[in-house]
Amino acid sequence: MLLQLSTWPEVENYLKTSSGLIIPIGSTEQHGPTGLIGTDAICAEAIAKGVGEEVQAMVAPTINVGMALHHTAFPGTISLRPTTLIQVILDYLTCLTEAGFRRFFFINGHGGNIATLKAAFSEVYYHLAHLRLSEADQVRCQVGNWFMCRSVYQKAKEWYGDQEGSHATPSEVAVTQYVYPESIKKAALSPDVASGYPIYGAEDFRRHYPDGRMGSNPALATPEHGQEFYELAVKELSNSYLEFLQSE
Amino acid sequence: MLLQLSTWPEVENYLKTSSGLIIPIGSTEQHGPTGLIGTDAICAEAIAKGVGEEVQAMVAPTINVGMALHHTAFPGTISLRPTTLIQVILDYLTCLTEAGFRRFFFINGHGGNIATLKAAFSEVYYHLAHLRLSEADQVRCQVGNWFMCRSVYQKAKEWYGDQEGSHATPSEVAVTQYVYPESIKKAALSPDVASGYPIYGAEDFRRHYPDGRMGSNPALATPEHGQEFYELAVKELSNSYLEFLQSE
Amino acid sequence: MLLQLSTWPEVENYLKTSSGLIIPIGSTEQHGPTGLIGTDAICAEAIAKGVGEEVQAMVAPTINVGMALHHTAFPGTISLRPTTLIQVILDYLTCLTEAGFRRFFFINGHGGNIATLKAAFSEVYYHLAHLRLSEADQVRCQVGNWFMCRSVYQKAKEWYGDQEGSHATPSEVAVTQYVYPESIKKAALSPDVASGYPIYGAEDFRRHYPDGRMGSNPALATPEHGQEFYELAVKELSNSYLEFLQSE
Amino acid sequence: MLLQLSTWPEVENYLKTSSGLIIPIGSTEQHGPTGLIGTDAICAEAIAKGVGEEVQAMVAPTINVGMALHHTAFPGTISLRPTTLIQVILDYLTCLTEAGFRRFFFINGHGGNIATLKAAFSEVYYHLAHLRLSEADQVRCQVGNWFMCRSVYQKAKEWYGDQEGSHATPSEVAVTQYVYPESIKKAALSPDVASGYPIYGAEDFRRHYPDGRMGSNPALATPEHGQEFYELAVKELSNSYLEFLQSE
Amino acid sequence: MLLQLSTWPEVENYLKTSSGLIIPIGSTEQHGPTGLIGTDAICAEAIAKGVGEEVQAMVAPTINVGMALHHTAFPGTISLRPTTLIQVILDYLTCLTEAGFRRFFFINGHGGNIATLKAAFSEVYYHLAHLRLSEADQVRCQVGNWFMCRSVYQKAKEWYGDQEGSHATPSEVAVTQYVYPESIKKAALSPDVASGYPIYGAEDFRRHYPDGRMGSNPALATPEHGQEFYELAVKELSNSYLEFLQSE
Amino acid sequence: MLLQLSTWPEVENYLKTSSGLIIPIGSTEQHGPTGLIGTDAICAEAIAKGVGEEVQAMVAPTINVGMALHHTAFPGTISLRPTTLIQVILDYLTCLTEAGFRRFFFINGHGGNIATLKAAFSEVYYHLAHLRLSEADQVRCQVGNWFMCRSVYQKAKEWYGDQEGSHATPSEVAVTQYVYPESIKKAALSPDVASGYPIYGAEDFRRHYPDGRMGSNPALATPEHGQEFYELAVKELSNSYLEFLQSE
Repeated sequence: MLLQLSTWPEVENYLKTSSGLIIPIGSTEQHGPTGLIGTDAICAEAIAKGVGEEVQAMVAPTINVGMALHHTAFPGTISLRPTTLIQVILDYLTCLTEAGFRRFFFINGHGGNIATLKAAFSEVYYHLAHLRLSEADQVRCQVGNWFMCRSVYQKAKEWYGDQEGSHATPSEVAVTQYVYPESIKKAALSPDVASGYPIYGAEDFRRHYPDGRMGSNPALATPEHGQEFYELAVKELSNSYLEFLQSE
Repeated sequence: MLLQLSTWPEVENYLKTSSGLIIPIGSTEQHGPTGLIGTDAICAEAIAKGVGEEVQAMVAPTINVGMALHHTAFPGTISLRPTTLIQVILDYLTCLTEAGFRRFFFINGHGGNIATLKAAFSEVYYHLAHLRLSEADQVRCQVGNWFMCRSVYQKAKEWYGDQEGSHATPSEVAVTQYVYPESIKKAALSPDVASGYPIYGAEDFRRHYPDGRMGSNPALATPEHGQEFYELAVKELSNSYLEFLQSE
Repeated sequence: MLLQLSTWPEVENYLKTSSGLIIPIGSTEQHGPTGLIGTDAICAEAIAKGVGEEVQAMVAPTINVGMALHHTAFPGTISLRPTTLIQVILDYLTCLTEAGFRRFFFINGHGGNIATLKAAFSEVYYHLAHLRLSEADQVRCQVGNWFMCRSVYQKAKEWYGDQEGSHATPSEVAVTQYVYPESIKKAALSPDVASGYPIYGAEDFRRHYPDGRMGSNPALATPEHGQEFYELAVKELSNSYLEFLQSE
Repeated sequence: MLLQLSTWPEVENYLKTSSGLIIPIGSTEQHGPTGLIGTDAICAEAIAKGVGEEVQAMVAPTINVGMALHHTAFPGTISLRPTTLIQVILDYLTCLTEAGFRRFFFINGHGGNIATLKAAFSEVYYHLAHLRLSEADQVRCQVGNWFMCRSVYQKAKEWYGDQEGSHATPSEVAVTQYVYPESIKKAALSPDVASGYPIYGAEDFRRHYPDGRMGSNPALATPEHGQEFYELAVKELSNSYLEFLQSE
Repeated sequence: MLLQLSTWPEVENYLKTSSGLIIPIGSTEQHGPTGLIGTDAICAEAIAKGVGEEVQAMVAPTINVGMALHHTAFPGTISLRPTTLIQVILDYLTCLTEAGFRRFFFINGHGGNIATLKAAFSEVYYHLAHLRLSEADQVRCQVGNWFMCRSVYQKAKEWYGDQEGSHATPSEVAVTQYVYPESIKKAALSPDVASGYPIYGAEDFRRHYPDGRMGSNPALATPEHGQEFYELAVKELSNSYLEFLQSE
Repeated sequence: MLLQLSTWPEVENYLKTSSGLIIPIGSTEQHGPTGLIGTDAICAEAIAKGVGEEVQAMVAPTINVGMALHHTAFPGTISLRPTTLIQVILDYLTCLTEAGFRRFFFINGHGGNIATLKAAFSEVYYHLAHLRLSEADQVRCQVGNWFMCRSVYQKAKEWYGDQEGSHATPSEVAVTQYVYPESIKKAALSPDVASGYPIYGAEDFRRHYPDGRMGSNPALATPEHGQEFYELAVKELSNSYLEFLQSE
């Protein structure tokens, strides 16, 4: 059930049996010489839709642009500032809480979003409590990072070892290949790839990671791998969603 | 060319021959008993992709959630506050201008976004000038509202007359039927439909427009109509984009 | 009845019979070689006072500085950013709503204010609803642009044709001449005047409109014309106000 | 020289010989049973115009609404929040500094504005320095409170003694009577008037000062007194302005 | 009773008999060649603790960084912008009011904080009223500036005369010597010290006050003096606190 | 070297050989029936001072109040909203970067600060880059959480096992006992202590953790333990600081 493809009476109806909502959040940022700029949004959206079908949950439209300021020295990256993203989340959840939703499960495709999402949740709980809604204290948010699912992580390690890296990884590239097989990109990738350097500002990032990859070899990705990652993530996050929903 | 499905070197390459970018913006809001909540985003995205192909322009990811505060008394609506949307636009265009984009053509699917977009553009020009970028004064933004295209508007009047209305219109519903034929919704629609009442706050809006439609009869929509509206809009907005780009 | 020239018990008394308030809003911006920088505020204030007398409505102090960022490359222009103007409107209407006012009729002298005002109204309705005032859902705002009154517009076309232009127009200059006959300015005006170029940033604006006029010939203005425009606008906006107030 | 009644070339010309600007700032707030709601703006504007003529300085449009949150429990009061007023001042002075003004002399009619103005000035200096304007470090702001002029203060004490009070004072009421003799209001004033209680929130203020006066007897005011206060203030503030301008 | 050294049940208990809280606020800013950067925070904290013991009041953790933008051209200075400090105060007092505190007595060590604190208090009262807490209208804030205590001021004049100056004064340096005798700094101080120049921006300030002192001779300070200032301030502010608390 | 106990010439001098700064950040929040409200600030400050001595680094004043919104249903807790804390960090680091500092090492005592700090750092890098400082791209921030030091963590597990818990832990209580042996609190602690429930809003938190502890038994703490934790943390974080500083 996609919110975008529902009518308001269908949403009203849904709310009679569930107060849960899945919100996919990605990023629009460079993913190395062959990774799609939309990688994080594409993965989050595909997996969120899969989970939605699995658990019969409503899925909100994808937040395509997240917190990727450190990638902005590469063209094509679009990022919100953390304070803007917090306001966006606040506006989303205020509307949705007033409509009757109470459990917000963010399926996230980008590590750089995690800190800001957590900060946003704190701000949301506080803000909603001050709006004096009768059930504001029932609102709960959770982040499910598909790339940190245990099963996904283990499979990536098994297949790629150290070449999984931490950005523009073969696992995320594989998922985009599975979702968009017509958009598989090829480019010569240097076998020497930077890794291990912490993330600070955008210029500094590009200086240390000149082609945008962080220790990864995305050439290892295949659409078949992508399908398996997709299925593992859908399965694991479906369980997480159900636990989240059922928690008292 | 979708930004989401491009790599950063492809964007870098694109910028050598064009500084234009198409940004679809819609809304996530009630569209009456049969209209999809994502109607405005769906239409804007489909048409933007069509224009992008037609004129070989890069298309950014869709801004799915816009300014729809007056619809928030209906469940499923998600809206940004105008001040939040202004910050979002500011963040987008700051990143994109620093990367080398100069002409931003917003293909818009929602009347309620127009005022805030215009306000945002003023804020953007001012902000970019203060960032002291060397070409900040070259940045230009334009809104192309597909539903206000002359050819679209005339066709809708021809087919639907007064039953086009002004929200949850048969024309926009038709486009979504063309794009998502598997999601055509049916419901009994009262022949009496409110119209002509100005838009103020959300509760007031729902009181006056109890099923969410504003003077429209979306039952008149067909996927075939949708295709024709789509093609008219793509053609007209492609011309607008090219003129915008070529303006000295 | 001017709010500025009333006492608080008089306001309290007024609120027993009316919840309407007229708020003049102008701008402080260049108006070409002969137009007064205060043109938009002067016109809005004079006409608002006229309407206030005609319909026995309270008139608030004029918002002298509006959204004129695109004029800021000319000295003397003062502008708020859209986000600041939204906060200003929010603060005004929060105070006034808490005092008992419900219908806010903005008499506006500047096209550049319209988008931001509309955005502000949406933000106001939303904010007031969240303040949990018992009648927040009764608050309504409307903009009456004197220069877009049908009667004014037609008269300007009749007298000036294309030389009315769209900024530093003879009609608005005429109203200021009527209001401040001692401040009629003369200067050589080039017969070649730029027009038709869209408005982007401030530097770009000045480059395209080097003397500040947009297609206008303000030399056609006379105080007598100004008086007629004034009277037409007062009459038409008085009707608009009464309709606004009486709307259920 | 009023900015509102000048053209931009006149401002450009003015800036060749002076970088000073007088900005009147008042408030729109209750002033007891007989004081005009616009008292603070009226006084500031009249005196600023007088000073402008005396010293041949440009005078900006009056900031009619200031920081009067503690008066908002009385109908008719309009106030900005301090943070909004700071943004307003920031926007004003950014525009004006970019145009070439450097010395901003605020003629203030309301004690409640002083703290926020001072805070705003700090924010302005900091912000302008960060805009990297070449002369940002030359910008200076000063507040001249007409009611705290030594000569005004002494005269008020001489004429009214303790009945001057601290809000809705006979001295400020007198100035409004001088400026608007047709708007002199009469009402029975209780001889018992609250005084000495500190200012906290709006409800608390009204509870302690039920008719809005703070220790004052505005019935002592006369238009003749008003003229004398006006002249004393103009003289003293003209000197302050000249000293401010000439300070190295 | 220090809040930092209390448990939450102890605070709960305290609130049964008192709703007062002392909040020390200082600054982290240059204090001339020999003054400690923490001078204002050190003095405020020490005196606040003294008052807290004297009157059995709870003392909050010290706000170490205040509004010192004009000192930021000297290394080591840290300042909040006024708008940030207002948000900080707003957050503090919202939490504390919801917990049951009602009377906030700020013991302040820095003149530059006063305006922003006053602005913040207005914003706080307004904000708390809008949160619809039942006793929001009982909240009161007061600033006690230790260096403006009558007894302190007179003693400083008696001991130092004009050499007290107005920044990096011997009196404040003396208090820090009393609190941190192991951190007494020595440096050659020019007998010529700037004074009397108003405070504008940071660069301008440093240009006029090249070593950071404003008319002061901190070499006159002794730890013994510091102890006396401390005792005078504690005594006087203890009385102020008790009056503040007892005011109806 | 404490910044608070230094003079500005000493800071100027320090910057000739180091651009590093240690910034302790804690929280002011309930720590169960026996834990001090200042626990997180006390631990961070003590350990930061220890590290500062060990590595000869400058230590800034402690940020006493952090992000603890989820604890605000317990009296005595003071929290900033995440967006406020981001502004605070932004202001701090802007001042300090302009003064010449480049490496900011936050010694953190509170898990709830981590997400907001990370978000703040992203915002800081972006903001500083836009200020066009010549070395903005050299600025780096790092968080060192003393309670997550490997040696500390292992020791706590060894001594307390599961009774370490995750809030109001014996390890942090022990450190406060070591620092403030005169403030050791005793109270009956229920052997049943809640644990494992995720953190959402403040009311929800208190409902699930009624005495404020999260799975911990702070009665196990001793001052001697505290000293050992202190020493382990100082040693480990000193190494982290030196690595951070030396990283190219």
